[in-house]
Amino acid sequence: MTRLFKKHYHPAGTAPGTLRELSPDQARQQGPATFLLARREAGRWSEMQEISVEEMPVATADGQLCWLHVQGLPRAEQLEWLGDRVGLHPLAQEDILNGGQRPKVERFETSLVVFLGIPELDEEGDLHLYQLTLFMGGNVIVSFMSGALDPFVVFRRRLKERGGRALGEPDDLLYGLLDAAVDHAFPVLDSVGERIEEMEVEILNHPDSSTLEHLHGLKRELIMLRRYLWPTREVINQLLRDHDDLFTPDTRLWMRDIYDHTVQVIDLVESYRDMTASLLDVYLSSMSHRLNESMRTLTIIATVFMPLTFIVGVYGMNFDNPASPFAMPELGWYWGYPMVWSVMIAVAIGMVVWFKRKRWF
Amino acid sequence: MTRLFKKHYHPAGTAPGTLRELSPDQARQQGPATFLLARREAGRWSEMQEISVEEMPVATADGQLCWLHVQGLPRAEQLEWLGDRVGLHPLAQEDILNGGQRPKVERFETSLVVFLGIPELDEEGDLHLYQLTLFMGGNVIVSFMSGALDPFVVFRRRLKERGGRALGEPDDLLYGLLDAAVDHAFPVLDSVGERIEEMEVEILNHPDSSTLEHLHGLKRELIMLRRYLWPTREVINQLLRDHDDLFTPDTRLWMRDIYDHTVQVIDLVESYRDMTASLLDVYLSSMSHRLNESMRTLTIIATVFMPLTFIVGVYGMNFDNPASPFAMPELGWYWGYPMVWSVMIAVAIGMVVWFKRKRWF
Amino acid sequence: MTRLFKKHYHPAGTAPGTLRELSPDQARQQGPATFLLARREAGRWSEMQEISVEEMPVATADGQLCWLHVQGLPRAEQLEWLGDRVGLHPLAQEDILNGGQRPKVERFETSLVVFLGIPELDEEGDLHLYQLTLFMGGNVIVSFMSGALDPFVVFRRRLKERGGRALGEPDDLLYGLLDAAVDHAFPVLDSVGERIEEMEVEILNHPDSSTLEHLHGLKRELIMLRRYLWPTREVINQLLRDHDDLFTPDTRLWMRDIYDHTVQVIDLVESYRDMTASLLDVYLSSMSHRLNESMRTLTIIATVFMPLTFIVGVYGMNFDNPASPFAMPELGWYWGYPMVWSVMIAVAIGMVVWFKRKRWF
Amino acid sequence: MTRLFKKHYHPAGTAPGTLRELSPDQARQQGPATFLLARREAGRWSEMQEISVEEMPVATADGQLCWLHVQGLPRAEQLEWLGDRVGLHPLAQEDILNGGQRPKVERFETSLVVFLGIPELDEEGDLHLYQLTLFMGGNVIVSFMSGALDPFVVFRRRLKERGGRALGEPDDLLYGLLDAAVDHAFPVLDSVGERIEEMEVEILNHPDSSTLEHLHGLKRELIMLRRYLWPTREVINQLLRDHDDLFTPDTRLWMRDIYDHTVQVIDLVESYRDMTASLLDVYLSSMSHRLNESMRTLTIIATVFMPLTFIVGVYGMNFDNPASPFAMPELGWYWGYPMVWSVMIAVAIGMVVWFKRKRWF
Amino acid sequence: MTRLFKKHYHPAGTAPGTLRELSPDQARQQGPATFLLARREAGRWSEMQEISVEEMPVATADGQLCWLHVQGLPRAEQLEWLGDRVGLHPLAQEDILNGGQRPKVERFETSLVVFLGIPELDEEGDLHLYQLTLFMGGNVIVSFMSGALDPFVVFRRRLKERGGRALGEPDDLLYGLLDAAVDHAFPVLDSVGERIEEMEVEILNHPDSSTLEHLHGLKRELIMLRRYLWPTREVINQLLRDHDDLFTPDTRLWMRDIYDHTVQVIDLVESYRDMTASLLDVYLSSMSHRLNESMRTLTIIATVFMPLTFIVGVYGMNFDNPASPFAMPELGWYWGYPMVWSVMIAVAIGMVVWFKRKRWF
Repeated sequence: MTRLFKKHYHPAGTAPGTLRELSPDQARQQGPATFLLARREAGRWSEMQEISVEEMPVATADGQLCWLHVQGLPRAEQLEWLGDRVGLHPLAQEDILNGGQRPKVERFETSLVVFLGIPELDEEGDLHLYQLTLFMGGNVIVSFMSGALDPFVVFRRRLKERGGRALGEPDDLLYGLLDAAVDHAFPVLDSVGERIEEMEVEILNHPDSSTLEHLHGLKRELIMLRRYLWPTREVINQLLRDHDDLFTPDTRLWMRDIYDHTVQVIDLVESYRDMTASLLDVYLSSMSHRLNESMRTLTIIATVFMPLTFIVGVYGMNFDNPASPFAMPELGWYWGYPMVWSVMIAVAIGMVVWFKRKRWF
Repeated sequence: MTRLFKKHYHPAGTAPGTLRELSPDQARQQGPATFLLARREAGRWSEMQEISVEEMPVATADGQLCWLHVQGLPRAEQLEWLGDRVGLHPLAQEDILNGGQRPKVERFETSLVVFLGIPELDEEGDLHLYQLTLFMGGNVIVSFMSGALDPFVVFRRRLKERGGRALGEPDDLLYGLLDAAVDHAFPVLDSVGERIEEMEVEILNHPDSSTLEHLHGLKRELIMLRRYLWPTREVINQLLRDHDDLFTPDTRLWMRDIYDHTVQVIDLVESYRDMTASLLDVYLSSMSHRLNESMRTLTIIATVFMPLTFIVGVYGMNFDNPASPFAMPELGWYWGYPMVWSVMIAVAIGMVVWFKRKRWF
Repeated sequence: MTRLFKKHYHPAGTAPGTLRELSPDQARQQGPATFLLARREAGRWSEMQEISVEEMPVATADGQLCWLHVQGLPRAEQLEWLGDRVGLHPLAQEDILNGGQRPKVERFETSLVVFLGIPELDEEGDLHLYQLTLFMGGNVIVSFMSGALDPFVVFRRRLKERGGRALGEPDDLLYGLLDAAVDHAFPVLDSVGERIEEMEVEILNHPDSSTLEHLHGLKRELIMLRRYLWPTREVINQLLRDHDDLFTPDTRLWMRDIYDHTVQVIDLVESYRDMTASLLDVYLSSMSHRLNESMRTLTIIATVFMPLTFIVGVYGMNFDNPASPFAMPELGWYWGYPMVWSVMIAVAIGMVVWFKRKRWF
Repeated sequence: MTRLFKKHYHPAGTAPGTLRELSPDQARQQGPATFLLARREAGRWSEMQEISVEEMPVATADGQLCWLHVQGLPRAEQLEWLGDRVGLHPLAQEDILNGGQRPKVERFETSLVVFLGIPELDEEGDLHLYQLTLFMGGNVIVSFMSGALDPFVVFRRRLKERGGRALGEPDDLLYGLLDAAVDHAFPVLDSVGERIEEMEVEILNHPDSSTLEHLHGLKRELIMLRRYLWPTREVINQLLRDHDDLFTPDTRLWMRDIYDHTVQVIDLVESYRDMTASLLDVYLSSMSHRLNESMRTLTIIATVFMPLTFIVGVYGMNFDNPASPFAMPELGWYWGYPMVWSVMIAVAIGMVVWFKRKRWF
Repeated sequence: MTRLFKKHYHPAGTAPGTLRELSPDQARQQGPATFLLARREAGRWSEMQEISVEEMPVATADGQLCWLHVQGLPRAEQLEWLGDRVGLHPLAQEDILNGGQRPKVERFETSLVVFLGIPELDEEGDLHLYQLTLFMGGNVIVSFMSGALDPFVVFRRRLKERGGRALGEPDDLLYGLLDAAVDHAFPVLDSVGERIEEMEVEILNHPDSSTLEHLHGLKRELIMLRRYLWPTREVINQLLRDHDDLFTPDTRLWMRDIYDHTVQVIDLVESYRDMTASLLDVYLSSMSHRLNESMRTLTIIATVFMPLTFIVGVYGMNFDNPASPFAMPELGWYWGYPMVWSVMIAVAIGMVVWFKRKRWF
């Protein structure tokens, strides 16, 4: 299972802005970061090319528009070098390295840094959140993507084909990256929605003990998604509200579309939460209903057979003093045995009628 | 059962504004869209006539007022053509084709697009939401209604008869369409309300296992309605608050009436939610009560008959050493059998009295 | 039981402002509306006199102050006539006829219409909400009260005796009517409060299956009251905040008093909701406690007697091969019978001790 | 038990501002009100002296500062006389006599009236709220305290000793009284906190049926406290926000301290509510756990002994046709009896092993 | 267990600002307070040195920057002396001595006092909150830390090494201390998170009765943390919003980072609460599931064996009137015994088939 809490923190009191080196274990897992650069030349985007970090151009306000995509976690000295080149604030550098940031937007004097998460389900259906950091400073956009997931595969293809929008300005490009990132939540939610509907069928038809575990797993994921989605919405909202000087009116219109998407996604998560809560109620009630059913069956059986067993027990007693007229004279009666059967049948019928009257079956 | 989540989305990263073609399956299900046009000439509304999309007039601010109703989902190229003619933004076109939009209002430079949902119950009592999109640009109003449901049957009759209000201005007409759309929620809620009251009677009198499923079905629909109604209220509120330049003071007064309707409807849905929650409590408590009842019956029966069965078992034992004075001498006593009966009756009465004292029945 | 949802609505799409005629059934039930008029002449209020609607004076800003009380639902043409006379907007007329309005305040150019509900308990303790509409235009106040309940009995007596405040201005009179209307909630809440306290005693001492139904009935009424009280508070608040031009500073002070009353009443309803929730918890827990008690009794009895019954069963077997030394030789032992009794007593005591140790009784 | 709802209200429609006479029963219970007056002369506070209401000085803005404490409920004519003397508004007079007011602050032209409640636990641990009304007008402060509880015992001692702050201004004195009143909640909460902790120990170690009643009692008191504390906080907040012209900057600083106290107290009440909710969960779960335990014991016993009892029952049958080779030949076998025992022991062991495997004990 | 409520309060009515002496018991527990002073000289921080309180320099706005750390609770006269020296308001002095303050920020004319709590887990995993008070006045920062916990160990090392930021201004130093204090919550939350995950495994695999107690313990700690964290966030927010005149733009940027941390921590606590709620549901449901399982086992066993036991009981009866043809003739039949077995096997199979059909196992 995925851990809910993955922030790597310094011991309280260490200087903020201190860049943390990866543990060797983490470094191995992540592998070295790759740096992919695309430039816009003569109104066209070049293909992305892998570069070494030293080749990174300096960000200026009037230069050539370019987009650097950093896949995987860079080493501290790489990040520092990059930070110097493009003007990435030390606090933002720290947050990129630490990972597990809450989605947020930070405005520094001349640059903007947006922290997001990309949710993804692995093959076992467990939910993971990968951190995406988008930096916009001057004419340079840098995207940092931790982990191996590359959310911009489709986007890059589009960029190459120059399909859709022209993406000739930094805010345009930022919008495109944000859009691609936010839309990653849809397939995840779709899969969660499908599982809820499967569970609905399962619970209404043949609930068993594993049902509960699945339901808890769903809730867990919804808690995680919710924790990620609310601040994401807030990020987009802040971009629209507080940093609208960075966007052209046209891009703002498209940003509103992203905002609508996040609101829609949150709505859905809330509905899913309501649904899982309702499913739990159904599950508990059906458990309670079945218990009642068992209990009634048992009570009816016991109530019918216990008196009968008592009666036959009585005539299994061995009182046999031949001198006593009270020594179970019934045993010697001519009609004794049929009479006992009559009594027993009467008792049984009586009980059954009584239960029928009480509508027990 | 209806799916909660029906948004058709592009793979993350495709260019926004890309119009999605329907899958052949969807296209067959929907059938071709029909285009109905009504014009206002010499202070009267003409009848609606089916046109082909190419005949659509261009929207201008000073021309003749006209209303195009598009029933069913148009093909992408039809929508694009229409968009060019009347000034429907590509983003709005995309949302119309994708369907499953959250109710929202979008203001573009010269036009206004309102996305709503029309709730309807099918014959099996399942709730469906059909997307209605209202476009107002210049002197043209276009309404797009996905699916086969036509919400404007009564409205069109009124338009023809020129009953009620004159509807000589675009905002007037828009108001009329909004009003007709919002009021579609009332019969749905009425039906839900009736089902809640039936369920109330059912749960208080003779709850069974299907009760639960019905209750869950109700909750499901309330979740869906709620998800649709809250943003609907917001849409009407935004129209009143942010876009009041589009409405004459008189129309604004009537819009407030729609707003009141949405508030009333939401109030009702919230009360229904409270009611279903209370009904679930009642159901669970009544289950619990019945379990207690079964349990007590069983306990009383078992507590009375187990000791008796034990006693008769004792005298069914075969100790018969004639040499032993301890070999069940009771069996040979003159008063043995009556004595055992006395003991058993005493035990039974004692138990019953004890239970009576503990107020068990 | 009272229905939660009583709005009479037009089919979606009919022209707003269309006045709905009563069904013959409703008309019969309501009886004809009566119109009672009081005028203020020479600083005194005349007695209320029944008039026919045609005698209604025209509302002007400088004329004689008068109050028309309409008891029962007027016919559509009566209302239209009255509307023309005093300037009651068609939308308000529609709302009066439809009934079941959410409490709200509507300001038209020269008039103010307040919709409220008067809660009342019938003899069976069921809660009903009757619609009260207060209209203030120029020097005329009109109150429409649906149903047979007359909330102004005490108020009229006061008016006649000129007790309390002078009521020489329209806003004064409006305040007086609002005050009388809002205070109608107090006896209802008092009665609900008493029932909660009775239920508390009942649940803590001798809960039974009807308890649940009562509790549900209480919740139902609290849901209804809440749905009515929140917008009522909002109405009073709006009057104070948005329409303070209509009130003299002095009247505003008294209006604040009404506002305090509504807040107090809502507070109380919320506390009652908390109380009923807590009572349900107590009920469910006590059910659970009793179930435990039954279960333990049963378990103890079964655990003690089942082994004993088994033992006596053993010695009721008929193995009797005289040639076999293993054919239940115990039966022939001299001390056999006492020995069996000893074993049984030991088993019983052992079980009881074991249960004592586990603190089962 | 204390009633939650104690407002004495007029029949709806009586003139507001009408002073209600006490019922003879209430009057007897309350006893006559006593009027205690302290004056500030030459920079010192005199001792409080009992006066009759007619001796009350008239409030002026420049006169001698004085404080009248009214212990118990004054008669209507006493209050009216006092009201005339110091300028107490008829609405405030009505609220004082009616009692059961929600904490609130009322500003009249030249005076300020603060309604508060003083919570107190009686010897049986039941919570009572007594109404305290503080009036500040000109140089006169009047405090009305219903019931026998005197919240200012310590405060008066301090006043006499001139300890702490000088209290030379009306706002100073008002602050002092408010502080003393609000701090009365602390010991009450402390006692509630202690009971919660006792209950925690009780529920975790040996819950019984009375536990539930105690828990409900706690909840009841928390509901009452909450209903009183939220508006109290609002009162202090309003004094700071809306009426800061009445306080010197220095006093405002001290008022903020009172505000902090109310916030702290509300925080605590909310935490207590969370705690009691959690305790109820624990109680219900432990009930559920015990039920499981009983059930398992019973199931194990029954599952082991029922088959055994059946087996011994079989060999208690009396088939004895000597001619039939099928008439229970086992009974005559040489090893018959030991064989039955072997079977029975095998069955018993089998069952026990099966339960062990299923981890039932 | 830690008490939730530890405020030491005066009897209501004592003068605010009165400094409370420690009880001898408390004083012994706390030991004498130590005063550690660091000065900034020539752009470097000196080592911290223990001083006696009399050596404390007077705070001025232009003097040498210095930081006094008071570890443990000072005596009232020490605090008063210190207060005079640096300008610590009597109200703040009182709050420091009383302890148990809600996190808050108080601005006095020339100084700022921030009250925080440092959460820590003791070895038994119980949560404790220690009060930290930060005072900034002129060029002096004083930190008061109650209890033995020193949260600034790492920070002091950094100060000495002049690592990280220069800390040459008071606001810089305040920021550093706040940062160190807030970050103390991370390891606590991490440990809580780990316990939740352990509990998740425990509940899903082998819940027992102690599970519940652990879950309640977790909830308790989350209630405490929440009660501390919400106002902490508010404190940081207030510092940023209301007191931004005290911070340089640069420090404000770093303060925003602290704010982000508190928001992240609160997010986490809320997610943990959701998780524990979900875990409780799982626990209760699994209890319910197990109960069902027991119940079914019991019902199946009883339903199969009770009829069988009855049948064998029948043929254990002793009707033996040789003259009667009805005296259990079956006993004498040639095929009697096999027939009875056939019947019993048929009954048993029938029951098992019936349960299979009802999907009971």
